[in-house]
Amino acid sequence: MTPQRPNVESPNMSQELSPDWIVGFIDGEGCFHIGISKHPEVRFGYQILPELTVVQHERDIDLLQRLRSTMNCGVVRRNHGDRYCWRVRDLKNLAEIIVPFFDKHKLRSKKAIEFQKFAKVVKKMVKQEHLTEEGFQQICQIASGMNRGEPRPVLGLRESPFQGESSG
Amino acid sequence: MTPQRPNVESPNMSQELSPDWIVGFIDGEGCFHIGISKHPEVRFGYQILPELTVVQHERDIDLLQRLRSTMNCGVVRRNHGDRYCWRVRDLKNLAEIIVPFFDKHKLRSKKAIEFQKFAKVVKKMVKQEHLTEEGFQQICQIASGMNRGEPRPVLGLRESPFQGESSG
Repeated sequence: MTPQRPNVESPNMSQELSPDWIVGFIDGEGCFHIGISKHPEVRFGYQILPELTVVQHERDIDLLQRLRSTMNCGVVRRNHGDRYCWRVRDLKNLAEIIVPFFDKHKLRSKKAIEFQKFAKVVKKMVKQEHLTEEGFQQICQIASGMNRGEPRPVLGLRESPFQGESSG
Repeated sequence: MTPQRPNVESPNMSQELSPDWIVGFIDGEGCFHIGISKHPEVRFGYQILPELTVVQHERDIDLLQRLRSTMNCGVVRRNHGDRYCWRVRDLKNLAEIIVPFFDKHKLRSKKAIEFQKFAKVVKKMVKQEHLTEEGFQQICQIASGMNRGEPRPVLGLRESPFQGESSG
């Protein structure tokens, strides 16, 4: 669309989104999510996937690009139908950009509670605690209290990989 | 909940929401809407009701109260089920607080387009242009291009109060 613009992080300050704007927008539209899905090739048979996503109608794809560019991480992808999302999954970016950003610039909504849990999981994963049984169970426990309305994989996990571990 | 706190506008600055946060949150969750509904007792038989609303789950009712208090207008009401809303309908507050606020602090999403139309309608209503046939029709025309997906009352209006007026 603008081939003359060099591929650097927003040389035009008017394109930058302020931290407060970002916090307000994420308070409204952001989702801090810990995905836990079966994966036969990883330890304990379950993959833990923390991600921050923001879904918007395609008319606001430029805004998602500005979010990506201002935060300097993540990707903008089609989500479903006419919806696009900005998504950050890379653990290094979550740990070094996203978590410190929202540690510094506090969310004002109750989404702050989800963020606290999310940050705890990311920090544990950086320390590779998810590779220990205890750490893995702790993460599943934290994730089970997030994103209300979703099925809670931790219940299934308790019955399979760690059956009897925590009930003794 | 806090009876010792005097009923003034947020003496505690930490309770205030910054303009940028508000813009980000409204970019995500706000709705600028022009309601047009049948009302036999008003001129032309239709009432024009501009309103700004923000709907949230009841867990964030405090945040809606902070919005109300920071902007110093509107009401917080139950919307439906476990949803509450902050709503500004008073024309004076829309014209003197809401429109100047978002004129000064620009929305970053495409919702800015809806706001422009909304502001145009509010300004026309302050000048009582909705009480003239021409002004009323202009407002219906503007409203018909907003809030996609809703029925467009202007079509019905064209067939009733102003039949033949604009087709000649």
